[in-house]
Amino acid sequence: MPTATWNRHHILSLADFTTTEYDTVLQTAASFQEVLSRRTKKVPTLQGQVVANLFFEPSTRTRSSFELAAKRLSADTLNFAAATSSMTKGETILDTAKTYLAMGTDIMVVRHREAGVPNAIAAEMDRLGVKVSVLNAGDGQHEHPSQALLDLFTITTLIDPASPRLELLKGKKMAIIGDILHSRVARSNIWSLIASGAEVHLAAPPTLLPKLFAEFISEEVVGRSQEVTERSRSESGVRSNSPTPQLFLHWQLEPALQNADFVMTLRLQKERMTAHLLPSLREYHQLFGITRTKLQLCQPNVKVLHPGPVNRGVEISSELMDDPEFSLIQSQVTSGVAVRMALLYLLGSGKA
Amino acid sequence: MPTATWNRHHILSLADFTTTEYDTVLQTAASFQEVLSRRTKKVPTLQGQVVANLFFEPSTRTRSSFELAAKRLSADTLNFAAATSSMTKGETILDTAKTYLAMGTDIMVVRHREAGVPNAIAAEMDRLGVKVSVLNAGDGQHEHPSQALLDLFTITTLIDPASPRLELLKGKKMAIIGDILHSRVARSNIWSLIASGAEVHLAAPPTLLPKLFAEFISEEVVGRSQEVTERSRSESGVRSNSPTPQLFLHWQLEPALQNADFVMTLRLQKERMTAHLLPSLREYHQLFGITRTKLQLCQPNVKVLHPGPVNRGVEISSELMDDPEFSLIQSQVTSGVAVRMALLYLLGSGKA
Amino acid sequence: MPTATWNRHHILSLADFTTTEYDTVLQTAASFQEVLSRRTKKVPTLQGQVVANLFFEPSTRTRSSFELAAKRLSADTLNFAAATSSMTKGETILDTAKTYLAMGTDIMVVRHREAGVPNAIAAEMDRLGVKVSVLNAGDGQHEHPSQALLDLFTITTLIDPASPRLELLKGKKMAIIGDILHSRVARSNIWSLIASGAEVHLAAPPTLLPKLFAEFISEEVVGRSQEVTERSRSESGVRSNSPTPQLFLHWQLEPALQNADFVMTLRLQKERMTAHLLPSLREYHQLFGITRTKLQLCQPNVKVLHPGPVNRGVEISSELMDDPEFSLIQSQVTSGVAVRMALLYLLGSGKA
Repeated sequence: MPTATWNRHHILSLADFTTTEYDTVLQTAASFQEVLSRRTKKVPTLQGQVVANLFFEPSTRTRSSFELAAKRLSADTLNFAAATSSMTKGETILDTAKTYLAMGTDIMVVRHREAGVPNAIAAEMDRLGVKVSVLNAGDGQHEHPSQALLDLFTITTLIDPASPRLELLKGKKMAIIGDILHSRVARSNIWSLIASGAEVHLAAPPTLLPKLFAEFISEEVVGRSQEVTERSRSESGVRSNSPTPQLFLHWQLEPALQNADFVMTLRLQKERMTAHLLPSLREYHQLFGITRTKLQLCQPNVKVLHPGPVNRGVEISSELMDDPEFSLIQSQVTSGVAVRMALLYLLGSGKA
Repeated sequence: MPTATWNRHHILSLADFTTTEYDTVLQTAASFQEVLSRRTKKVPTLQGQVVANLFFEPSTRTRSSFELAAKRLSADTLNFAAATSSMTKGETILDTAKTYLAMGTDIMVVRHREAGVPNAIAAEMDRLGVKVSVLNAGDGQHEHPSQALLDLFTITTLIDPASPRLELLKGKKMAIIGDILHSRVARSNIWSLIASGAEVHLAAPPTLLPKLFAEFISEEVVGRSQEVTERSRSESGVRSNSPTPQLFLHWQLEPALQNADFVMTLRLQKERMTAHLLPSLREYHQLFGITRTKLQLCQPNVKVLHPGPVNRGVEISSELMDDPEFSLIQSQVTSGVAVRMALLYLLGSGKA
Repeated sequence: MPTATWNRHHILSLADFTTTEYDTVLQTAASFQEVLSRRTKKVPTLQGQVVANLFFEPSTRTRSSFELAAKRLSADTLNFAAATSSMTKGETILDTAKTYLAMGTDIMVVRHREAGVPNAIAAEMDRLGVKVSVLNAGDGQHEHPSQALLDLFTITTLIDPASPRLELLKGKKMAIIGDILHSRVARSNIWSLIASGAEVHLAAPPTLLPKLFAEFISEEVVGRSQEVTERSRSESGVRSNSPTPQLFLHWQLEPALQNADFVMTLRLQKERMTAHLLPSLREYHQLFGITRTKLQLCQPNVKVLHPGPVNRGVEISSELMDDPEFSLIQSQVTSGVAVRMALLYLLGSGKA
């Protein structure tokens, strides 16, 4: 395992991640990916430590991924699921977190429907002066850092399996398609992609795009973005108020796909339809669903990502999803375990 | 542990199990039964492997049995329960299975309300060329192989504890009583009993029996059955269209119980009443419920089985259920852990 | 670990606990508290043993505490939750317990809405002549022994961290405030406090207090109580029919708080309001809610306990709950893991 210095105590957002931090995560995950290819896919690193999965919002996929990561590091795991919990008895979220703290939890993996809950728990832990780490496993429409890091690991290991690192994405074009406005996955990915020097093209129907950049991306992005060629700025649908030369908004799919190296489609929440933000699923698929035909606009070796679970035939055609030539969807899930092992390891190994 | 050659990659059905396979399972389970009598009931056999319990249909009993079996082999376990899962988010069953595959699952234990789901998952895994094994833990009204194998282990270890094997049942009479038509337990047991050379008598009200043998038992049974004495064919209620000299259908209880060595009662789903397939529970108990008095028709040392959970006073009298002289119900549960350890071991130990 | 002789096979109630038993639990918990301060908070004591959490009534907090205690002793754990269980299929509670017995469970941790369920399961296990231990994790309004033992551990380690023991509470005054009538926590605490020689003052609105001592406290308490100074008997609201000089009932808060060394507030079940046993939450807080101001009646170094989860601003002011000078609430949770490790260890280490 790399013994790079790691000073971050909580992982709540990628907004202020440094290049060194990204690279440490990627290299640590690569070491664990190697462990996972062995017959005995387990290391004793976190033996005796407790990882509590505090999932106030239900999730099978992410919870299983974190649980398996923790078990493969030999940690003990506790699962809290809001449905069967004392939350129904009126206890506050911070009190629940403090109960798990008092039981001896070392790392809390927190998911909540509302933005800011993991930050609030982390702030409370710091105020109490305890060593517990908080890892944001998705908070409202805010961030989902472990998802963006596994996406980053998936595409950088594709480029250089032996040495995945942030700079490999410099100059690459990533198209992110779908419900950008409500997506914590998009938001976390934008931070890592901007930091890498990639060019990020967001495409969605106007109702699923932020009206102004400022609503969506803070000033900091501007400061952190690098100079890149503005190759698609002149195309139709590109907003003129982009705060960074690396980030583009499109009301149409085509300019985003044009020469893209990677295409990330986002899950479409069916609730958006009820809220009249969208016409029919069929029309959505026709306009923004990714198919093999539409990929012809991209680079020849373009790859497609999706955070899952997928609505087949909506965000992406069923055929394309299963095509190993283009789809990285299965790789993303596999990367998820290695990346989450890396995050738990980096947070946990510093504890006395 | 026996190191018999084992080539079966999935356990989906007992329809094509060979005598060697049955005997390998029985002998392996016997070794684990011995492990379970030690103070430390654990072996490191599957350390670092992942067993995922994909229970699309809820079940505490079977899930706990598989979970404990996996833990006693030192495997890591992941539990998926449909109720709290992303299934509600519209992901397909195959996509859920592929997600667990991508996380690094080695063995999937699958239960589903609909027949054929474990087979479909296994077919998909094979199509993908991956080494993951699928174990059917009950699919609709189709099969429940681990239940039939634990029943087989329970009765063969009773006859010869040192060396349980299929041939011990040759010529024995097994009565299976109750909702045959809808029972995956009955169906899997018929395969193993026919293969052993036992005589199988099925008894139920006409509405809970298949109308024609062909609806229920495929042609293959005929081919695989052996010649046995047709001692109860002439009795009342015996259907004349039996495809095999080992299998008999009865509309009444008595001819099935006559001289039986083993009686297996099946759980009565209360829903059958709503569907007007049955009169009252009381009348059902009077006609088909097993009691000590009714057992007098059987062999003197007859034993009673039930897959559980039991409706006391419906399928079986409360008194008989608790009578250790006749009831094997607790032994079945104990056998369940040993047999499931054997199945996980046989599927898992071949993996690199 | 202390190797004191321990002969109790089940832990169902504290009614007949001896001083030696209390002290053995306290000393064993102290040893585990020390283990929990190490980097690797795990011991191999119960490796290969199975602890089944049979929670017929849902609980996250207590279940997590027992689960973590079991894992830190290296036991395998099985979780049964009534909601997703075959209970809905009509199986009896005893049959569920016998199923877990047959699977090889060594210790059953049982919680149920109705009083007496853990006792019934224990009686059945004894009748069957098996070695399984039953631990009551809360039964109806009857008892919650592990909660009272962790409360005892919390306050005795405060007085003498090196050697917590029952006699340390002799002559101390404990006020228990709130829904005494329906509280299993109060009931179990009364046993341990009376045994220690402490003075116990119960205060609540009349509708939440037992009408007669005899309804609530059996004759045995009288026999077991010691002589103590009856310092508050003359105060307003004290019932005259107290069966023991150590136990007092009050309709008002003040005499209970007067010079108290410890104040235990109980959780207020909101259902009591629906049943018209209480006016508003606001009025309840005004009359019986504990605040820093009200604590001025107590000893200067008074400490406050609460079994959790807390309704902030009802039983206790939010400010007081978070004040480390007074609140032991977090310590109680931490003690819970150590005490439950002790209980599982004492029950489990005797097994062959």
